[in-house]
Amino acid sequence: MLDEIAEQPDALRRLADHALEYGLVAAEMQRRHVHYIRLVGHGSSDNAASYGVYAFGLLPGWTAARDSISLTVYYGADIDVSDSCVVALSQSGETPDVVEYVERARGRGAYTVGITNDSASPLAQAAEAVLPLAAGAEHAVAATKTYTAQLAALALLAGHAAGRGAEVVEAVRATADAMRGMIPALEAKVLELSVPFAYVGRMFVIGRGPEFATAREVSLKLLETCRVAAEPLTATDMVHGPVAALDTLFPIWAIASDEQSLPAVQEAARRAQAVGATLVACGSLADRIEHPDYLLPVPVPPLPILAPLLSIVPGQLFAWALARAKGLDPDRPSGLTKVTLAP
Amino acid sequence: MLDEIAEQPDALRRLADHALEYGLVAAEMQRRHVHYIRLVGHGSSDNAASYGVYAFGLLPGWTAARDSISLTVYYGADIDVSDSCVVALSQSGETPDVVEYVERARGRGAYTVGITNDSASPLAQAAEAVLPLAAGAEHAVAATKTYTAQLAALALLAGHAAGRGAEVVEAVRATADAMRGMIPALEAKVLELSVPFAYVGRMFVIGRGPEFATAREVSLKLLETCRVAAEPLTATDMVHGPVAALDTLFPIWAIASDEQSLPAVQEAARRAQAVGATLVACGSLADRIEHPDYLLPVPVPPLPILAPLLSIVPGQLFAWALARAKGLDPDRPSGLTKVTLAP
Repeated sequence: MLDEIAEQPDALRRLADHALEYGLVAAEMQRRHVHYIRLVGHGSSDNAASYGVYAFGLLPGWTAARDSISLTVYYGADIDVSDSCVVALSQSGETPDVVEYVERARGRGAYTVGITNDSASPLAQAAEAVLPLAAGAEHAVAATKTYTAQLAALALLAGHAAGRGAEVVEAVRATADAMRGMIPALEAKVLELSVPFAYVGRMFVIGRGPEFATAREVSLKLLETCRVAAEPLTATDMVHGPVAALDTLFPIWAIASDEQSLPAVQEAARRAQAVGATLVACGSLADRIEHPDYLLPVPVPPLPILAPLLSIVPGQLFAWALARAKGLDPDRPSGLTKVTLAP
Repeated sequence: MLDEIAEQPDALRRLADHALEYGLVAAEMQRRHVHYIRLVGHGSSDNAASYGVYAFGLLPGWTAARDSISLTVYYGADIDVSDSCVVALSQSGETPDVVEYVERARGRGAYTVGITNDSASPLAQAAEAVLPLAAGAEHAVAATKTYTAQLAALALLAGHAAGRGAEVVEAVRATADAMRGMIPALEAKVLELSVPFAYVGRMFVIGRGPEFATAREVSLKLLETCRVAAEPLTATDMVHGPVAALDTLFPIWAIASDEQSLPAVQEAARRAQAVGATLVACGSLADRIEHPDYLLPVPVPPLPILAPLLSIVPGQLFAWALARAKGLDPDRPSGLTKVTLAP
């Protein structure tokens, strides 16, 4: 897992070399005047889909949403998808209900795009267009480089759709370099942080806007590698109820990387600290969160929409370090296999 | 809280008396050929929005999705919403960013509908059409009758949109009667169940399809009234990672109420039991989940899409009973106020 975290800058640079393929698919999306992007995936891929909502919303100004797979696959809902583009995310390309969703949507006239590491997979065969993730073989069960490659892939697709493909490609490369530079210092910091957290059983992870994807992905890493009941919440939803659960044994991980959502994240952090919860502040604006107990800052990205590529990395590293502090094996969490074939 | 749980059948019958108003709004949605329903709300209202995705998907076969409030309100995304209908959910009608979202969407040509208990609220003024929730004054901080009224409101609107308004109205009334009949036996069962759960600190709540809304709402009740770190997961997402966190001290609450998602819920339940997790089975098909430790069955609803109105009730009652078993006050969770005005 640690090797694959460190490999992410190379994986992002490899993906950037496929920019032309992303540009061609974006051109086809424009040619068909697709009104609506339906994002589908499970686990980390679904977390990447949360990011896609913002990448398409902020770059070309298109409506994108995480679609219900079960509505189509299990309930057979009769929904018109002919003016939609489906973007399906699967590391292996083998997730059965994602493949079935794509087959059905394609049969009903949607433009279907699969983004996967395996261009010979069932997903690649089911989708009309296939885009390579180029993350390379991932051996640790918990996805790391696949996730950041999925974010970059969605940014590339949305950037091309906005006529800003070249700018996003260059920004992805610069983000890869920034990531490479920040990893050694963060690795030392999370090792230190993992000691006082060794007996933590539950956490909230707070983000809003594009960083809600990061909150979801940090939570999933902590759940699957550290057995921590970590729950992702938008800063606003936390104060709508879950704040009542907080106490001194319930730490908060808060992510701040843009001015727009900063006041909501600051308010959530204040509410958490008021009841004595330990506060970890992360992101490029981490230092704007008042009085954090621990600070894990990351660089400002060359384009604001790419911030989640950097702010996930402290969470990945922390999950790895905390698993070790808890005496667990971060590479092989119990009860999981790399490809999930269950219904 | 207990009084308001018991009041839900009356609240549903009151709402059914407003069916004509729902029919008129649905007719306007059809007249404008809206392509896309954007559902917005926070907390329990956002959980009801999860249900709306299935109510609109399965009744009229329309695309509905929980929209990002922050994309419009904080990030100022320039998205075309002119062919959309916004359905905004807020008990008080005062949630600031929901009101602002509605104002902006209306300014850009969306058909905006507010569903609220207060027809003089800022939301009611901001939206083009206002529909009454008719749940009556809710005094407990944790929403119960507002939530089930929101589900019924979405079912009524979707039913009218499908030309099945009269059928749904009658089914809501019959569901209210079924709910009234089941509450006394469930109240006794949850009091018993709350004793062995008094020291539980974390749980997973599993549902899929329309019951994912129930999983989210049960989790929120447990978080805000019992300080349990409860996480909602679709049955499929649980086996994609979080299953690794399970152990004998991490109970599962599984909801099953239709044949379509039953195999996925059964598989998730099997995986949980394989590692020794305690299993609570709930829903109208609860008895089809193998070897549950605790069984909280509810009646089969008169229409399948109304199942979540019944399957939430054991969760509401359990949250009330567990709060008392933990020595907490279910009516006044610490740090919460009824109306959330924070950013």
